Amino acid sequence: MDRVKLVQAVEEQLTRSRFEHTKRVIATALTLAKRFGADQEQAELAALLHDYCKCWPEERLREVIVTGDDFTQDLLQYNKELWHAPVGAHIVKQDLGVVDKEVLDAICYHTSGRPHMTLLDKVIFVADYMEPARRFPGVEEVRLLAETDLDRALLKSLDNTLLFLIQRGMTVYPLTLSARNFMVDQVHQSKPKEESL
Amino acid sequence: MDRVKLVQAVEEQLTRSRFEHTKRVIATALTLAKRFGADQEQAELAALLHDYCKCWPEERLREVIVTGDDFTQDLLQYNKELWHAPVGAHIVKQDLGVVDKEVLDAICYHTSGRPHMTLLDKVIFVADYMEPARRFPGVEEVRLLAETDLDRALLKSLDNTLLFLIQRGMTVYPLTLSARNFMVDQVHQSKPKEESL
Repeated sequence: MDRVKLVQAVEEQLTRSRFEHTKRVIATALTLAKRFGADQEQAELAALLHDYCKCWPEERLREVIVTGDDFTQDLLQYNKELWHAPVGAHIVKQDLGVVDKEVLDAICYHTSGRPHMTLLDKVIFVADYMEPARRFPGVEEVRLLAETDLDRALLKSLDNTLLFLIQRGMTVYPLTLSARNFMVDQVHQSKPKEESL
Repeated sequence: MDRVKLVQAVEEQLTRSRFEHTKRVIATALTLAKRFGADQEQAELAALLHDYCKCWPEERLREVIVTGDDFTQDLLQYNKELWHAPVGAHIVKQDLGVVDKEVLDAICYHTSGRPHMTLLDKVIFVADYMEPARRFPGVEEVRLLAETDLDRALLKSLDNTLLFLIQRGMTVYPLTLSARNFMVDQVHQSKPKEESL
């Protein structure tokens, strides 16, 4: 499917405000991709499609998870806000013919994160977290970190997400904690190298 | 081993200040056990022994974990402060002949927590968290909750622990998150019942 048709397909799936958010994530992802050396075509495509199923009703998302064979069913025990990401990856592959595994993974993990995130995963996660209209507590610090250090920006985004969920009495998806623990270790390990520069 | 000998054994393992902490945990655990209907003998024994290996050097703790067959080895990837609890349960069974599985579990999980915590687990975890000399941020709220609701006191202790670790850039043991997610669900589920009283 060519880019114009993909954009039309996305626009049909989303509310106007969610489509505007998507456009801001594309712009932010492209900036981050340029800054940190990620593939710009992949970044643009993953950003365009990242929220493809965001506006689907809960029951439709649940049905895809229950009937699909590529989902961990424990997802259903956690926050519904997580569901659209893996469902989105599944559906853009099935309905739009997207086959790039890296793009599909970046869509799949853009809300939960995961350990061993790829550069593209990180670009999409952070772009979604910090696009200019976001007003999360702590988002300014993420934007500042993302000027120079994508890993620290990602870790701060994950930390902020965990703190937000815990302070509001919401359950936390274990994969998000694993993603965050992994980045703690990675950022700590990278310290001596950076400090010796 | 009779109670006097057990107390002597504990005193030999601990620094003076850690032994004083243990005495405060015993008193607090007995108060909580009476209040919430836990077995007082088990609570006293688990509290007495909960920090049995707390003052052991890191290498000695690591050796027990590596050579014992009842440890999850992933423990070694996480904060060393967690190690003394499962090692303690193993050692008081082996060296002091403690066989009560519920007491051993309460010792084993008094730092990490776990899903499906028993009443005794909860009593020991919360007593250790809120004994009178503790000065953690938020401990007063835990003490207040523990006047009437052990589950909410436990959830608050777990939340405080997670927030503390995340804010300080430390990794979080996944079992602690599972313990906390489990309590979120349990406390939420218990709400309607309580509200209808």
